[in-house]
Amino acid sequence: AGFCSRGPPGAGQAETGSRRVPLSNRQLGGIRNIVLSNPKRRNALSLAMLKSLQRDILHEAESTDLKVIIISAEGPVFSSGHDLKELTDEQGPEYHTEVFQTCSEVMMLIQNHPVPVIAMVNGLATAAGCQLVASCDIAVASDKSSFATPGVNLGLFCSTPGVALGRAVPRKVALEMLFTGEPISAQEALLHGMLSRVVPEEQLEEETMRIARKIASLSRPVVSLGKAAFYKQVHQDLRTAYHLASQTMVDNVALQDGQEGIKAFIQKRKPVWSH
Amino acid sequence: AGFCSRGPPGAGQAETGSRRVPLSNRQLGGIRNIVLSNPKRRNALSLAMLKSLQRDILHEAESTDLKVIIISAEGPVFSSGHDLKELTDEQGPEYHTEVFQTCSEVMMLIQNHPVPVIAMVNGLATAAGCQLVASCDIAVASDKSSFATPGVNLGLFCSTPGVALGRAVPRKVALEMLFTGEPISAQEALLHGMLSRVVPEEQLEEETMRIARKIASLSRPVVSLGKAAFYKQVHQDLRTAYHLASQTMVDNVALQDGQEGIKAFIQKRKPVWSH
Amino acid sequence: AGFCSRGPPGAGQAETGSRRVPLSNRQLGGIRNIVLSNPKRRNALSLAMLKSLQRDILHEAESTDLKVIIISAEGPVFSSGHDLKELTDEQGPEYHTEVFQTCSEVMMLIQNHPVPVIAMVNGLATAAGCQLVASCDIAVASDKSSFATPGVNLGLFCSTPGVALGRAVPRKVALEMLFTGEPISAQEALLHGMLSRVVPEEQLEEETMRIARKIASLSRPVVSLGKAAFYKQVHQDLRTAYHLASQTMVDNVALQDGQEGIKAFIQKRKPVWSH
Repeated sequence: AGFCSRGPPGAGQAETGSRRVPLSNRQLGGIRNIVLSNPKRRNALSLAMLKSLQRDILHEAESTDLKVIIISAEGPVFSSGHDLKELTDEQGPEYHTEVFQTCSEVMMLIQNHPVPVIAMVNGLATAAGCQLVASCDIAVASDKSSFATPGVNLGLFCSTPGVALGRAVPRKVALEMLFTGEPISAQEALLHGMLSRVVPEEQLEEETMRIARKIASLSRPVVSLGKAAFYKQVHQDLRTAYHLASQTMVDNVALQDGQEGIKAFIQKRKPVWSH
Repeated sequence: AGFCSRGPPGAGQAETGSRRVPLSNRQLGGIRNIVLSNPKRRNALSLAMLKSLQRDILHEAESTDLKVIIISAEGPVFSSGHDLKELTDEQGPEYHTEVFQTCSEVMMLIQNHPVPVIAMVNGLATAAGCQLVASCDIAVASDKSSFATPGVNLGLFCSTPGVALGRAVPRKVALEMLFTGEPISAQEALLHGMLSRVVPEEQLEEETMRIARKIASLSRPVVSLGKAAFYKQVHQDLRTAYHLASQTMVDNVALQDGQEGIKAFIQKRKPVWSH
Repeated sequence: AGFCSRGPPGAGQAETGSRRVPLSNRQLGGIRNIVLSNPKRRNALSLAMLKSLQRDILHEAESTDLKVIIISAEGPVFSSGHDLKELTDEQGPEYHTEVFQTCSEVMMLIQNHPVPVIAMVNGLATAAGCQLVASCDIAVASDKSSFATPGVNLGLFCSTPGVALGRAVPRKVALEMLFTGEPISAQEALLHGMLSRVVPEEQLEEETMRIARKIASLSRPVVSLGKAAFYKQVHQDLRTAYHLASQTMVDNVALQDGQEGIKAFIQKRKPVWSH
């Protein structure tokens, strides 16, 4: 999967010819845009698409040129989830296992990645597509977006999407979605914590890019240290969590960018990050 | 506790004459309606009422004729919680222990039950009554409903209701309710995640039945597998949760109804569940 | 740190002359008011301020004269968090460790304290100031208040505030705040669970005092037992949580105030607490 840096989102068409699956990727100013680009297949997360997404997220993850990742999609459907043709009897349980394990690895990779990952959603996100949104660190959506876990209608309960959903929204909201398959609106998703922000469609890119540029302007090692510490402490008991986080603060203060930031603040000047 | 299948809710009066406690029960089209029917005692959850509720929830739980349970109540109070007359010195600590343990068993039974349990609330739910709503998988309430844990006013902190409340709403909301005993409105309960849906009183039955009929139209083993997996994974660490849920997905795909659903979707026809 | 009981909040100026840090404290009718009183330094949580706060919270914590604590602040900034001058290279990692550990101890002390602690916020609360609000049992704010974790702007990720924030609001909201440093409004903080109540500025004291007086009118041992049980059970698995909470209920019923409350209710009279 090649990478192409081609300017800000919307600046050009995706060069997808040489890729195994339609997924475009471009990086500029520290912001990597990964775009699900298979609108005819409703951006289904086929095994090939999942592996390509995994590669694109992992590509040069340790490079200091990368500050933040945005995952978005072409067309009216953000993603419809798994490709059902990959889940028939013909493929068999070993193949099914690979599909679900790869999907789970992608979702966990987002949280374990050193830079923040933002979902930019403009349309319908269902099943593993909804899971992808729920798994990102930040999620911005247009007000025409909606979210559902409709697998139960097809006899396939959205159990893996339920892992991300059950950690993003209150239990009753998650279960009503999982048991009925009915969609919730972007506003409801915001109300219940699955999204961090909802904006009109015409402001979606601008608002997402504003957040991304803000993150790209910060010290990458500081952000990385903080992200890792957050996910490490958040499921611990309070005393363990504070022990871990206090040590992280001390380590952070000792970073070159930690001292630069504090000095710049005291000296009332802009910090210059060494990353 | 006998059961009577007598049509949809509201179709007739409860036959409670032969029951030890007033609690009516009817099942039609896979939907079991359990109605707390002691409005004169504010549907207090006496030990007898709790045991009857337990029996009615457990009755033929494994029957494929049962797809979903609705718990509702007669009168303006959904339930006022424990019967305080059972908590005086005269009964003694062993009796008190039986009351609280039975109550806890009923609440856990709801989550461990193979089919979804919906609370349909039209009025005030307090203490263990509020706990009952918070413990259901889905909760639909009329906009005139309200919720409180007022035990502290009587010198009896709602600690067991706090188990369900503390898992349904943010910690600060739970603690303000527990420390002050003051009610929150249905809208606030929705905002904070204790309810999945709030509707005008006149639409309460229609909306609840719509959700119940939807669930009753689905494959029971698929819903049961998904419900059990959700509660199993939701408190695990992320890696363990995904391991459990991925295995559940593979098992689900292998179910007869899993393959039927996928085939029906690909063939653009309605699935026929074998359950 | 001396204490002075001088009437309700706003009744007089803080007597801070003899204190090492500006923090006033007064207690009346069971309600202790601790006021961060260093508006010129934006009520920064310097090590001295943290230790003074710790002393004032701990002072006679076991006295039955104390029923509830309110933490508020003078000036337009509730608290700006740590004093950055204490976090430069000159102090060194041992001093930094003491700062963060002391701060963590104060936050945990609030939850481990026998009486409820209410944050009354009228203005901006940032970094460890935001953490302090998120750590209280109840938080009431004026609608002009706002909340941020802006450390990342200074190269110092708010990892310890993230411990409290990550337990108060949904993960995506916490991460957007931590990654961008941007503030959320009081209304957003309420929506996402960091506050229990938002009121117009002119009603802030009245509303907070109403809640405090309500708590002060209750049985202190009942409230203390309930608070401790809540925090003990809320992170346990459901079965363990119910086991703990059921035992707490039985113990509560056996308390003198437990029996008095139930008897008073049955006899339709006001309970008289012995505490």
